[in-house]
Amino acid sequence: MSGMTAKGEKRLMLFTGRAHPELAASVAQELGVEIVPTSAYDFANGEIFVRFEESVRGSDAFVMQSHTAPLNQWIMEQLIMVDALKRASAKRITVVMPFYGYARQDKKHRGREPISARLMADLFKTAGADRLIVVDLHTAQIQGFFDGPVDHLFALPVLAQHVGARLDHSRLTVVSPDAGRVRVAERWTDTLNAPLAIIHKRRDPRVANQVKVHEVVGSVEGRLCVLVDDMIDTGGTITKAADALFENGAAEVVVVATHGVFSDPAVDRLKNSRISEVVVTDTLPISPERRFDKLTVLPIAPLIARAIREVFHDGSVTSLFGGEA
Amino acid sequence: MSGMTAKGEKRLMLFTGRAHPELAASVAQELGVEIVPTSAYDFANGEIFVRFEESVRGSDAFVMQSHTAPLNQWIMEQLIMVDALKRASAKRITVVMPFYGYARQDKKHRGREPISARLMADLFKTAGADRLIVVDLHTAQIQGFFDGPVDHLFALPVLAQHVGARLDHSRLTVVSPDAGRVRVAERWTDTLNAPLAIIHKRRDPRVANQVKVHEVVGSVEGRLCVLVDDMIDTGGTITKAADALFENGAAEVVVVATHGVFSDPAVDRLKNSRISEVVVTDTLPISPERRFDKLTVLPIAPLIARAIREVFHDGSVTSLFGGEA
Amino acid sequence: MSGMTAKGEKRLMLFTGRAHPELAASVAQELGVEIVPTSAYDFANGEIFVRFEESVRGSDAFVMQSHTAPLNQWIMEQLIMVDALKRASAKRITVVMPFYGYARQDKKHRGREPISARLMADLFKTAGADRLIVVDLHTAQIQGFFDGPVDHLFALPVLAQHVGARLDHSRLTVVSPDAGRVRVAERWTDTLNAPLAIIHKRRDPRVANQVKVHEVVGSVEGRLCVLVDDMIDTGGTITKAADALFENGAAEVVVVATHGVFSDPAVDRLKNSRISEVVVTDTLPISPERRFDKLTVLPIAPLIARAIREVFHDGSVTSLFGGEA
Amino acid sequence: MSGMTAKGEKRLMLFTGRAHPELAASVAQELGVEIVPTSAYDFANGEIFVRFEESVRGSDAFVMQSHTAPLNQWIMEQLIMVDALKRASAKRITVVMPFYGYARQDKKHRGREPISARLMADLFKTAGADRLIVVDLHTAQIQGFFDGPVDHLFALPVLAQHVGARLDHSRLTVVSPDAGRVRVAERWTDTLNAPLAIIHKRRDPRVANQVKVHEVVGSVEGRLCVLVDDMIDTGGTITKAADALFENGAAEVVVVATHGVFSDPAVDRLKNSRISEVVVTDTLPISPERRFDKLTVLPIAPLIARAIREVFHDGSVTSLFGGEA
Amino acid sequence: MSGMTAKGEKRLMLFTGRAHPELAASVAQELGVEIVPTSAYDFANGEIFVRFEESVRGSDAFVMQSHTAPLNQWIMEQLIMVDALKRASAKRITVVMPFYGYARQDKKHRGREPISARLMADLFKTAGADRLIVVDLHTAQIQGFFDGPVDHLFALPVLAQHVGARLDHSRLTVVSPDAGRVRVAERWTDTLNAPLAIIHKRRDPRVANQVKVHEVVGSVEGRLCVLVDDMIDTGGTITKAADALFENGAAEVVVVATHGVFSDPAVDRLKNSRISEVVVTDTLPISPERRFDKLTVLPIAPLIARAIREVFHDGSVTSLFGGEA
Amino acid sequence: MSGMTAKGEKRLMLFTGRAHPELAASVAQELGVEIVPTSAYDFANGEIFVRFEESVRGSDAFVMQSHTAPLNQWIMEQLIMVDALKRASAKRITVVMPFYGYARQDKKHRGREPISARLMADLFKTAGADRLIVVDLHTAQIQGFFDGPVDHLFALPVLAQHVGARLDHSRLTVVSPDAGRVRVAERWTDTLNAPLAIIHKRRDPRVANQVKVHEVVGSVEGRLCVLVDDMIDTGGTITKAADALFENGAAEVVVVATHGVFSDPAVDRLKNSRISEVVVTDTLPISPERRFDKLTVLPIAPLIARAIREVFHDGSVTSLFGGEA
Repeated sequence: MSGMTAKGEKRLMLFTGRAHPELAASVAQELGVEIVPTSAYDFANGEIFVRFEESVRGSDAFVMQSHTAPLNQWIMEQLIMVDALKRASAKRITVVMPFYGYARQDKKHRGREPISARLMADLFKTAGADRLIVVDLHTAQIQGFFDGPVDHLFALPVLAQHVGARLDHSRLTVVSPDAGRVRVAERWTDTLNAPLAIIHKRRDPRVANQVKVHEVVGSVEGRLCVLVDDMIDTGGTITKAADALFENGAAEVVVVATHGVFSDPAVDRLKNSRISEVVVTDTLPISPERRFDKLTVLPIAPLIARAIREVFHDGSVTSLFGGEA
Repeated sequence: MSGMTAKGEKRLMLFTGRAHPELAASVAQELGVEIVPTSAYDFANGEIFVRFEESVRGSDAFVMQSHTAPLNQWIMEQLIMVDALKRASAKRITVVMPFYGYARQDKKHRGREPISARLMADLFKTAGADRLIVVDLHTAQIQGFFDGPVDHLFALPVLAQHVGARLDHSRLTVVSPDAGRVRVAERWTDTLNAPLAIIHKRRDPRVANQVKVHEVVGSVEGRLCVLVDDMIDTGGTITKAADALFENGAAEVVVVATHGVFSDPAVDRLKNSRISEVVVTDTLPISPERRFDKLTVLPIAPLIARAIREVFHDGSVTSLFGGEA
Repeated sequence: MSGMTAKGEKRLMLFTGRAHPELAASVAQELGVEIVPTSAYDFANGEIFVRFEESVRGSDAFVMQSHTAPLNQWIMEQLIMVDALKRASAKRITVVMPFYGYARQDKKHRGREPISARLMADLFKTAGADRLIVVDLHTAQIQGFFDGPVDHLFALPVLAQHVGARLDHSRLTVVSPDAGRVRVAERWTDTLNAPLAIIHKRRDPRVANQVKVHEVVGSVEGRLCVLVDDMIDTGGTITKAADALFENGAAEVVVVATHGVFSDPAVDRLKNSRISEVVVTDTLPISPERRFDKLTVLPIAPLIARAIREVFHDGSVTSLFGGEA
Repeated sequence: MSGMTAKGEKRLMLFTGRAHPELAASVAQELGVEIVPTSAYDFANGEIFVRFEESVRGSDAFVMQSHTAPLNQWIMEQLIMVDALKRASAKRITVVMPFYGYARQDKKHRGREPISARLMADLFKTAGADRLIVVDLHTAQIQGFFDGPVDHLFALPVLAQHVGARLDHSRLTVVSPDAGRVRVAERWTDTLNAPLAIIHKRRDPRVANQVKVHEVVGSVEGRLCVLVDDMIDTGGTITKAADALFENGAAEVVVVATHGVFSDPAVDRLKNSRISEVVVTDTLPISPERRFDKLTVLPIAPLIARAIREVFHDGSVTSLFGGEA
Repeated sequence: MSGMTAKGEKRLMLFTGRAHPELAASVAQELGVEIVPTSAYDFANGEIFVRFEESVRGSDAFVMQSHTAPLNQWIMEQLIMVDALKRASAKRITVVMPFYGYARQDKKHRGREPISARLMADLFKTAGADRLIVVDLHTAQIQGFFDGPVDHLFALPVLAQHVGARLDHSRLTVVSPDAGRVRVAERWTDTLNAPLAIIHKRRDPRVANQVKVHEVVGSVEGRLCVLVDDMIDTGGTITKAADALFENGAAEVVVVATHGVFSDPAVDRLKNSRISEVVVTDTLPISPERRFDKLTVLPIAPLIARAIREVFHDGSVTSLFGGEA
Repeated sequence: MSGMTAKGEKRLMLFTGRAHPELAASVAQELGVEIVPTSAYDFANGEIFVRFEESVRGSDAFVMQSHTAPLNQWIMEQLIMVDALKRASAKRITVVMPFYGYARQDKKHRGREPISARLMADLFKTAGADRLIVVDLHTAQIQGFFDGPVDHLFALPVLAQHVGARLDHSRLTVVSPDAGRVRVAERWTDTLNAPLAIIHKRRDPRVANQVKVHEVVGSVEGRLCVLVDDMIDTGGTITKAADALFENGAAEVVVVATHGVFSDPAVDRLKNSRISEVVVTDTLPISPERRFDKLTVLPIAPLIARAIREVFHDGSVTSLFGGEA
């Protein structure tokens, strides 16, 4: 037969944008690899330049970027990195988004809106992404926005282990801060074996216009409430929910979320609230000045590293969650 | 300048598959048009044949099909109709799905599952669909599964008008039958100005394995409960929810849903339940033998016809819902 | 160099839908592998659910489904399986269709018809199929409908060996039952070294409208006619062809076809005809009640298994047919 | 409402490559339009340059090119014209191919061959073609190779009118020159109300290797044979078929085909044969030196012009053929 | 015929992002239309939200955005606007980019770099853009990056009229500041009928490493040099070029460019240089604090408005430049 | 786990069209492989037929073709070869174009022109090309026309080594024959450490219409001019440039180009010119009758072979050029 043959071999290479290098470093350490040296900087007018300092030809590339502020810049950087990998002949490109930007715009709330979460999936596909690894999407349906494999990781085991170890189970009530989070809260009730309550935002019948009141549905009197959400952004929803819980007799409120976005004035709101602890992971960078006493930050790198290893070795990501992912 | 010119004109043509011709007939009547005569039949081995009896060249085609049982056959028929329209030079093809099949498989509940709702969107796109008109999707995110415009119609005004006209508002409580429906229930609380309760399915802590108990979260004692859902399939969820409500002291339970799927044994379950009324629309055909005393079926054709008219005349579908669609 | 390396390895995994599990079992046995355990069932309204019970990540997946009645259901099931494989990170997905549904709608016979055979190719591509393995397509051009590799297998060697072993070669005449099958019949004349005749359907000049008469073109007087077709559906064409042959003096008629569709009333027609033997393969399931004395069913699994093995090991499928495939 | 409005208007523009300008001129005359002035020439190394001398923005463009020798050049020219139209904002681009190049490579005859007829369809789609108009494809399945509308025109009425007017119907037998043309021949038998015969190429059992003999299947003794084909290329098939007919007692042989390719040595073969008349259309240019006494060339422009007019005015092309196209 | 008809009408709608609303306002005024009212704001974490306040269904939409700093944000906003228009059923979407971001990354300068200018074209295509209008691309080849029509407008007539009116033609020499701009400079020499010189960056043979010297190729002694470029970013290239010109005896230097990016420290460099005038257009916003005495800003809105009008009315953009665009 | 496993292995296979088999043979020899035996011929009407004589399943295929005259034929042949490889299950297809046809049509020079260089990239993508290897593109931006990896090889080291070894460095001036080649000339000035001059084509102010004069910008008096270009087609540009250099006092002119297209009357022009040497590579075939005394042809096969080897072994092509490719 004509031609020449060579043995097949695959090579994992880990890349990171500039948004959250500490997380990439932790993942690299867990995997026992070096991050591929990369030049990345902004031109004076804001255009991003990227170049890899090593050949990436034939690699199984994993490109990490957390979509933190300035979010559009970091998304564009990740898109440009994917383009460069594609054109440099990487064999397979996996985009790792510990936090998926624009996830909340996952539907048209009203007419003539974009569905930006779908747009993001399409942009990454166009740039050359073959697959995604994500952590706790705002809604699970976003998996379906990408035309290809999406490994959806859950921080719940990490978060629940911390919460479960510290609190008296018999006093716990899991609380969903709004209607969209009830499904997630249900998973928590099963994990912690606790009852459920939800905060229901309802138009105030006594007042004109769009004023909403926060009603607690379910009983929280004397309970240790675990308020669960996927992210804390400005903290408005979560602190109002906590207020409503205390008004309804809650004994204590602990807040648990995967993504600590902490946009202003989240830190002030949380500090000044009666919430006793706020638990998040480090899917997003949290600068020292945004850290506060009540805040606990759990590392997400071990989970991401295990997922990358399974993906690289054709193992099972589903198995990491007992068949759920 | 070379060439010849002609005036632009657009022509609406309405098509229907064989799943629910009565609905198409009603829509045609509302629009004041005839349905395009179409040959459609099954070959002996089940292959579907379709042919249009009139030229469809240049038309603005609307193709209706309700995804009722045998659902795969009707989806395939609609796909084949779209292919035939594309190849016969229809100018624009709008797929009208009063009920969107496979909508419940809108995410991977566990690993190695399909996301069939996304697959359906892609299949219709591939066949040649330019746009979709749908009624009350199982989750709003499904809009984002289609790469093009989706007009999402809501039956809530139709249903709420019926319910609101008949029942004492001060006694109403809106109930979501599970965690996934709470967002829809919230819209009802605003429309009816009523409080909210939800049915929470929770693993029974006293029993091993996966036994679930139905807990009522929120107060329903003495209330007239309006249990709202997007569809009633086998009726299991809804009748168990009703039982839980009565156990918790509900005075009366009325069930309202957009889509009456009514797979066996739904009719028996509902008939034999203490539910006082079941209200649905006719997005799906409901045969006489599946109709029962407590059942009210409201016509959806006026809504669909208005939407088609707006789409054809470049009007606003959003305006039909006060800016919400 | 950064990163970590691992040896390349490829893994064949065999999947089957629920249409014809016996054939898949035979192929698995020939290959010496187990079929991947798969949950597949219908929801009450007909929606199909599929889940693989093992990790399929990185696999070279072969998904078998025979498009038998209820054909649309089985096609949809196979599409859904492909979607699930794609989203679960199978490396390569080969769709195996022993019988390709809708193959007869391979062109517009008249205006405003679909070309459903092309549509099927596109639907599978959209779902995620990388390649197809098919047996005796209705027309060879269908290969060109799929945008990717199609391995087209021929049952002729299997069928011809059976026929050739049993019948007196000097008395044979190969007969094409209609104009569209003449090319296939020609291959048989070369294999069996026999003359050719064809059945010509012609509008009856003596009668108004569309009445057709079956004329035999070529000489069949006293001959042992081997009537060859790709499939037997309702048996109408084939039994009318046999009648015409006997009317023209044929001594005996044997029918040979790859695909035994056997829709009603095929079995009755064939049983009650003067045809002496009907030979097919088991590309489609043939239930016991549709089996009859004159029927011979030859196993197709060895051929499919050999093709899968060549595909998996980067061998040559063409070589299986002496350079013809 | 914001913005400004204008009336819709559509403008037909007719373009032609350099392969067969006479045909385009005839079509233009039939339509009553001018062909759009176009610069087209070859650079010294064979690269083609094209530029339109008028604005084509918003036009309904029809681009004619007959795929005659040097065929690859003319196909490339047509592709380049389509690209230029797309980039110059034509609204809709219809590629008119009176003869579709590479139509005979419509399947893999053996392994490791291209399917060039599908490739052509894809190349034109990629360049920007929205739709095709073609005349008598080699096989009807080629319609399915293009992802969009294909208007398939038939020359049969034009050809049959000529043949029918001149010959004694009672003496006619329609003959297919090989197995692949029998379907077309059948249409002729219905149109002319004549019996059928076919030429069957069969491996000679008395000689080793691949020698084929031409057997006549059906009776032609004393008949006036109308040998029908889609094209005459080198004339080998057709003259051998005629020889076989005369050997079997045919009284006269007339040859009818849509496309007169007439590659060498077709003209010599036909001149020197006992064939009494050769009838073709001018879908391809036939230079004066390739015209000979027995040759009749019928104009195809009226048919193409009528089809273009129907397409432009959203009429029905199907109606041109009594519902068959 | 079934169905209903309506007259075709088209409606131009003009949209703008938040990057350079003044330019959009000027274009709107030139066109005599209102900009479509649009809600656009940033969420706390930087995610952009956009909603149109009017129905855009069926419109011929033109979406303006100048890619100024923070450039990634404004590109993302424009992509999101396009997505929203697509999903709201705009008929045709034209993206107007007076300045095309990332145009300078139009090739891989070295291995493992992205080609971000191509990526941008693909992102806009993916989002839903049908066509582009751009002004003075960094290289003309970028037109070929977009798969669709690109109207490429030239500011040269506007700029040259200003320069030509003010300066003594007999003393002018056109100067290209580097090798990549010579083609543009040649157009200027023809317009102004002036000789050419270029600045050649050459590695200094006397010094190690990558030090470059600026050599003037051509004669500038005593000349009034018109230094022409497509953009002025940090002003480094242009001021070094001016220095080299003065060192080589230039009498005066005037700088002309289409795009005034003016990133820091451009303004200081230009102010402090011996350059006598800097002429740009307002394709990008130039804030008051970045304006300086020697700066002339010419309005680009009339040109863009004329192009939009031609595009809307199916006129000719090429005609605006005497056949060059 | 179900299924069976096998070791991964990859196999390089080298293919060539009929345009320049000598070059392919040289590359094969450098690589130490045989070219895959391939049947390729033209049918009488010019249609090309291709078939590979060996199984190519799973191969890493490299398909060489130089786009020499008759260029459209050879491009089509290469497209057809790619289609055949795709359908025969090659794993990866790399199109090797030592000379990229239509590269000069890389933009619209005026309105209503094609961008044929982009079209070529899209045609190869559509046919099935995964990646390209090219030598000295007319403009580097063409890399961005292909949606995938492009390895862009430079002949400069090969050419410069020849020129540098023979000529006195201190007397050299690098000359660009027109504005579009200045960037390439700059690379030469750095490699040879020589000054730059350019030929500027300018409209003659003394004569009406489009007469252009060739002005030399920069000093060439008494210099040994190295006139560098990417290709020599008809030789018009280059000989006029040489004339202008001699008129401006050049002592000697040597011409260096990567691609020797040598269309008529290039050879005569060059022979009869005062140019002392013409140096090209053999990216294109140069027939004996087009070779002349002053012509030096350097072999390009070693460079292409090294690039193919790097691509096959996942090495670095960039490293072949010190990081520049």
